[in-house]
Amino acid sequence: MLKELLENVGQTQPLVQAITNYVTANDVANIILAAGGSPIMADAVEEVGEVAAKSQALYLNLGTLNERTVEAMLLAGKAANQAGVPVILDPVGAGFTKFRTRVAQRLLKEVKFDIIRGNISEIKALAGIESQGHGVDVSKEDKSVTLTKITKTIKNIAHRQKTIIVVSGKTDIISDGQTTYIVNGGDALMSKVTGTGCQLTALIATYVGANPKYKLEASLAAVSAMKICGALGVKRMSKLDGNASLRNYIIDAVFNLTGDDLEKQANYEIQ
Amino acid sequence: MLKELLENVGQTQPLVQAITNYVTANDVANIILAAGGSPIMADAVEEVGEVAAKSQALYLNLGTLNERTVEAMLLAGKAANQAGVPVILDPVGAGFTKFRTRVAQRLLKEVKFDIIRGNISEIKALAGIESQGHGVDVSKEDKSVTLTKITKTIKNIAHRQKTIIVVSGKTDIISDGQTTYIVNGGDALMSKVTGTGCQLTALIATYVGANPKYKLEASLAAVSAMKICGALGVKRMSKLDGNASLRNYIIDAVFNLTGDDLEKQANYEIQ
Amino acid sequence: MLKELLENVGQTQPLVQAITNYVTANDVANIILAAGGSPIMADAVEEVGEVAAKSQALYLNLGTLNERTVEAMLLAGKAANQAGVPVILDPVGAGFTKFRTRVAQRLLKEVKFDIIRGNISEIKALAGIESQGHGVDVSKEDKSVTLTKITKTIKNIAHRQKTIIVVSGKTDIISDGQTTYIVNGGDALMSKVTGTGCQLTALIATYVGANPKYKLEASLAAVSAMKICGALGVKRMSKLDGNASLRNYIIDAVFNLTGDDLEKQANYEIQ
Repeated sequence: MLKELLENVGQTQPLVQAITNYVTANDVANIILAAGGSPIMADAVEEVGEVAAKSQALYLNLGTLNERTVEAMLLAGKAANQAGVPVILDPVGAGFTKFRTRVAQRLLKEVKFDIIRGNISEIKALAGIESQGHGVDVSKEDKSVTLTKITKTIKNIAHRQKTIIVVSGKTDIISDGQTTYIVNGGDALMSKVTGTGCQLTALIATYVGANPKYKLEASLAAVSAMKICGALGVKRMSKLDGNASLRNYIIDAVFNLTGDDLEKQANYEIQ
Repeated sequence: MLKELLENVGQTQPLVQAITNYVTANDVANIILAAGGSPIMADAVEEVGEVAAKSQALYLNLGTLNERTVEAMLLAGKAANQAGVPVILDPVGAGFTKFRTRVAQRLLKEVKFDIIRGNISEIKALAGIESQGHGVDVSKEDKSVTLTKITKTIKNIAHRQKTIIVVSGKTDIISDGQTTYIVNGGDALMSKVTGTGCQLTALIATYVGANPKYKLEASLAAVSAMKICGALGVKRMSKLDGNASLRNYIIDAVFNLTGDDLEKQANYEIQ
Repeated sequence: MLKELLENVGQTQPLVQAITNYVTANDVANIILAAGGSPIMADAVEEVGEVAAKSQALYLNLGTLNERTVEAMLLAGKAANQAGVPVILDPVGAGFTKFRTRVAQRLLKEVKFDIIRGNISEIKALAGIESQGHGVDVSKEDKSVTLTKITKTIKNIAHRQKTIIVVSGKTDIISDGQTTYIVNGGDALMSKVTGTGCQLTALIATYVGANPKYKLEASLAAVSAMKICGALGVKRMSKLDGNASLRNYIIDAVFNLTGDDLEKQANYEIQ
């Protein structure tokens, strides 16, 4: 199944609109291209609605949000909802500042999200559960919670919010409130590259854009692809390589990943 | 001739002001440096005019335009015109949204452009010919048109707009309405790297900044350089490399390209 | 001593807030991560104060300043001052336009900076000494001044401004008005990579964030680290490599630099 989901990306070349932060925008665009999609990063209020309606997926990322881009996200989100275009949220840093949490919750209220991808601190903050990350990273408290407990929390949030929740960490969890996937793999070094989270969410948007009828499975395929490619990237590192080369290697691996690779190497279980 | 045009860049180190999108700004700055120019990316309305007047070339790119940056582009464009500084436009996504087309046409009306570089869908949209790309990429319809027909269209547009038009694709076309160059080379994989179009336009701005009396020939030199370096980049790719490494290899190749390389390897004909 | 300063970064993982330009933001984030810090790039006026107060260092960079981000810098700077968080300024292009000089001087007036890092043209412009760089690069006049004379100027400015001044060039100079370090090493090719200056300032912020009681020594450690890693990056270049690969190699070298490397390879003298 994962094989077909990946191959659909190359065949349909989904147009993915990303309203994202300027720190990792280049990597986000390149990973969408690597997967076979076509990125468009327009973020002006005058055009985001028109772009969203013509896209196959809309990706919203709060990394460097400001008044202007929040307005653009709301407009794009509503236009995508109306046009039946899947909307994917990356609530970067939600819970770390009042503004971020408020914006994230306003977005949740006014836009229907198909998928939300964050670390556990961000997802808890979105759900109104007390939590505060270390900047854009997960908090120490949240890091120490057992997988079983996190999984239960995620499933509950997904059920309550009627959306697919993807939580990344050492182990990734994907749940629509009913079916839950636990995905293994990846490498801790991935967190040393800025924006691997943003890239993962963009990959989910790309896979979902190409497979709109299979959002949960497409999320699983994208998460598995990122885990595999992160591990391949680390494996490729020579003694002189560091996080800058790793950044390139991860995107390169996504570029080269075949449906068969994904099918064989994906490491997940259903709960 | 191409050899001298390239060598002039290193000798004069033209200051190139770029008001461009935040997705590919880093690559744009690095390719200007690779060619021997000096990039400055100021985009505040309070200073763009002053910067433009002190630069050797002004590069405007619509990638992530918004109300604030459109204002800056207009101010910078007018200041450059007044100071006799060449102005180069990359109308990213023109034709894809009403806002983009409107802004592009307003720029055309209020600023005199020396060179406009885009894909065929963007250039047609600018000229008021019905066309709509696939996001920031060329449309399928435009892709299937014969080279002879595109060349004629470009020549007409260049003649009417009294500017140099550069259209990129499998084959690139450069015309000032009288002389037309057809440039071969490059590689289809270049389109898998975000911003190779933005980079090409920046390269044209850099070459023209160093050779203001030979704008058509400088455009030919820059287009040829990009074709050669794109092909060299692809040739350098190993089995594990993908679009992220290719991004680096193309800029690296521009950094290493000598005047002799350019003179010998440029593959073009005059019409 | 340098060894401990470097190791403190990895141990404390300082949160570094960067309000910086969109051209080199990705490299700035990755070099902070490479050194062992944690970057957060929030720049909305609604949250910068809250973020600054929770950070271990605040890094302000004028690269692509505009009305909105200048306001954010002022708010963040004041909040950092109040919370006792070190504030580091990179006055990119000060002296090149009236707006840039005015903003830099307003920042100096309203925010107490612990460290200011620039090229000699920028630092002179800040101090009100006639100077104007070549865009964001040093002017030819300033380049020809002798090291002894520059060192004296820097010491005086540092003394008068009651701050640490770091000037980069072929030789770097660090002074708090009393003690002055002269740091050798690096490579001229570093200036062919966009944002190596921004990256150096970010590295200083990261080291100072982890060593707030030793700001002068932490600045020396960061400057030495950048010199060493720049030279290592150039040394690693193969015949096909250019400035794009060098960009990666420098950050990779920071990622791999150990306390022992830094202690042994740092090349400086005290005056």
